[in-house]
Amino acid sequence: MSDQTLFNVAVVGATGAVGEQILRLLAERDFPIQSLKLLSSARSAGTKIPFKGQELTVEEATPESFEGVEIALFSAGGDVSRALIPHAVRHGAVCIDNTNAYRMDPETPLVVPEVNIDKISGHKGIIANPNCSTIQMVAALKPLYDRFGISRIIVSTYQAVSGAGAKAINEMLRQSREVLNGNEANPDILPVGSLPVKHQIAFNVIPQIDKFQDNGFTLEEMKMIKETKKIMGDDSIEVTATCVRVPVVYGHSESVYVELKEEFDIGEVKALLADAPGVTLVDDPENQRYPLATDAAGRNDVFVGRVRRDLSNPRALNLWIVSDNLLKGAAWNAVQIAEYIAIPQA
Amino acid sequence: MSDQTLFNVAVVGATGAVGEQILRLLAERDFPIQSLKLLSSARSAGTKIPFKGQELTVEEATPESFEGVEIALFSAGGDVSRALIPHAVRHGAVCIDNTNAYRMDPETPLVVPEVNIDKISGHKGIIANPNCSTIQMVAALKPLYDRFGISRIIVSTYQAVSGAGAKAINEMLRQSREVLNGNEANPDILPVGSLPVKHQIAFNVIPQIDKFQDNGFTLEEMKMIKETKKIMGDDSIEVTATCVRVPVVYGHSESVYVELKEEFDIGEVKALLADAPGVTLVDDPENQRYPLATDAAGRNDVFVGRVRRDLSNPRALNLWIVSDNLLKGAAWNAVQIAEYIAIPQA
Repeated sequence: MSDQTLFNVAVVGATGAVGEQILRLLAERDFPIQSLKLLSSARSAGTKIPFKGQELTVEEATPESFEGVEIALFSAGGDVSRALIPHAVRHGAVCIDNTNAYRMDPETPLVVPEVNIDKISGHKGIIANPNCSTIQMVAALKPLYDRFGISRIIVSTYQAVSGAGAKAINEMLRQSREVLNGNEANPDILPVGSLPVKHQIAFNVIPQIDKFQDNGFTLEEMKMIKETKKIMGDDSIEVTATCVRVPVVYGHSESVYVELKEEFDIGEVKALLADAPGVTLVDDPENQRYPLATDAAGRNDVFVGRVRRDLSNPRALNLWIVSDNLLKGAAWNAVQIAEYIAIPQA
Repeated sequence: MSDQTLFNVAVVGATGAVGEQILRLLAERDFPIQSLKLLSSARSAGTKIPFKGQELTVEEATPESFEGVEIALFSAGGDVSRALIPHAVRHGAVCIDNTNAYRMDPETPLVVPEVNIDKISGHKGIIANPNCSTIQMVAALKPLYDRFGISRIIVSTYQAVSGAGAKAINEMLRQSREVLNGNEANPDILPVGSLPVKHQIAFNVIPQIDKFQDNGFTLEEMKMIKETKKIMGDDSIEVTATCVRVPVVYGHSESVYVELKEEFDIGEVKALLADAPGVTLVDDPENQRYPLATDAAGRNDVFVGRVRRDLSNPRALNLWIVSDNLLKGAAWNAVQIAEYIAIPQA
């Protein structure tokens, strides 16, 4: 790869849970880097982070941080993306944004490489990375959509606390210790850091991820509904979501009911899933094999199992879809997009 | 209540998690007891259990244990019920069975008092208590069924480990301590005690409850599908279930999508749920109030929230239904049935 074009790369939110995984993947994938700039809030600036044997110092992200940057990966929250991405674009960077800031912007492609990588060619400096719970679902459903069409999706999620950041992981582990010791959980972060009411997550499940909208759905549920249509490029797909936080550290699980437009052979469905890029079929009920969050943690793939024909609707299927929310759900999907930009033949 | 008829009562499985709750409820409800016989396997016989200031000794359950018994509550597993209930019936007892042994027997009423208490009059010595995850769902859906009709239910569950017995609770707590201390979880009981493959439940979710059937559904899922139709007395209701074990001690949660036969006013739906017997509506998104397993634990009611009109189907609703699986899901439903037998005016 010695004659490969090298890029000036910036990672914004380098000290966060997703930023950490992005850096690990950039090193592991030997991403063609000319220079690497680690950016964060003023509070984390000065942190030293090892990268391929060097020690890099995190700098405070400012509008001028992006001078000379060609590819910028953002995972520091929607407010940071909204404030800084226009400046990064002005400096000529292609921004891959992990936040909700630009996902539904009609000018911004919303990309899961296994589904719609062709959309990156239309970008105007920003490519949005979808919500974690959406990415794994559309990656698994894409081969079924292509073969049979999809009319309706009804999904209930079992989402890991790492989706709410490192603080939520610490809170869940701390609460678990407290409850095991017979003490109060004293919730402090979840379900939503910026909202006043807190609920125990240790040994509990919480049917709220992100804020409630006027229609009674949460923002997380609306993300799954809207982003699925945009990524699939098909507004006719009807989607219903119920998003639930569970006391798991890494790995979102999803119970998905999907109505296809045609009747299907269940063997063909399994074969399509087994062959799909980025998808691993784990489906052997006789030997009690199905995807588990603990098995998916630390792996890039989307795992699918419990594949079964619905008993009441011959065009419907039930699936169980699991993936590491920090990897395919965030860092890995972003690095995949960066590879498609940097290495056109990828 | 001094002139009340008193009954000779037996509790089979008195030392188990459900038996313990049955005894607590019989005492708390001041059930009209003439004599109380506590029965169990040979292994637990001899255990002393306090009841209303007395100390009772558990005896081994045998076919002749039921001589003179008028009401027998069984929660010692399907095999014990199949072996002993015919003898209890022969001795003239009315048996309330918490196991799966007789639920789908056409001669046996399957009863949730809020839904079909009228069915107990047809019993031939056996009344079956439905599966925990079914009971809470049908209790919540009954008022909607009566008012609008129901054509389809799609449910994904978040089921507590106590549904698999005291050993599963201990296993989940032990595994949690091990994982928090950086050790292996060493699974030993779940997902199904009698099957060879074990999976970690601490900080994980397992999409298997009970054994797999040839159609790819688990027995737990098939119970929800079949029992719902039988309890509602309506085979036309289409039901799909995905049953998942979560690391919660007490309280099953359910994400339920339900298609009604008519369009509805969402305010009327909430009013019907608020007025339904045995149901408590907890639905205030603005103040982040919705049912939680930790709040439902130790309470008899079924809690319903996250009530919202589906965005893609004007006849469909989404609900979040939570109840203590050992209480309304088992012991309380059984004691309710016993009260209807013992106290006809109840």
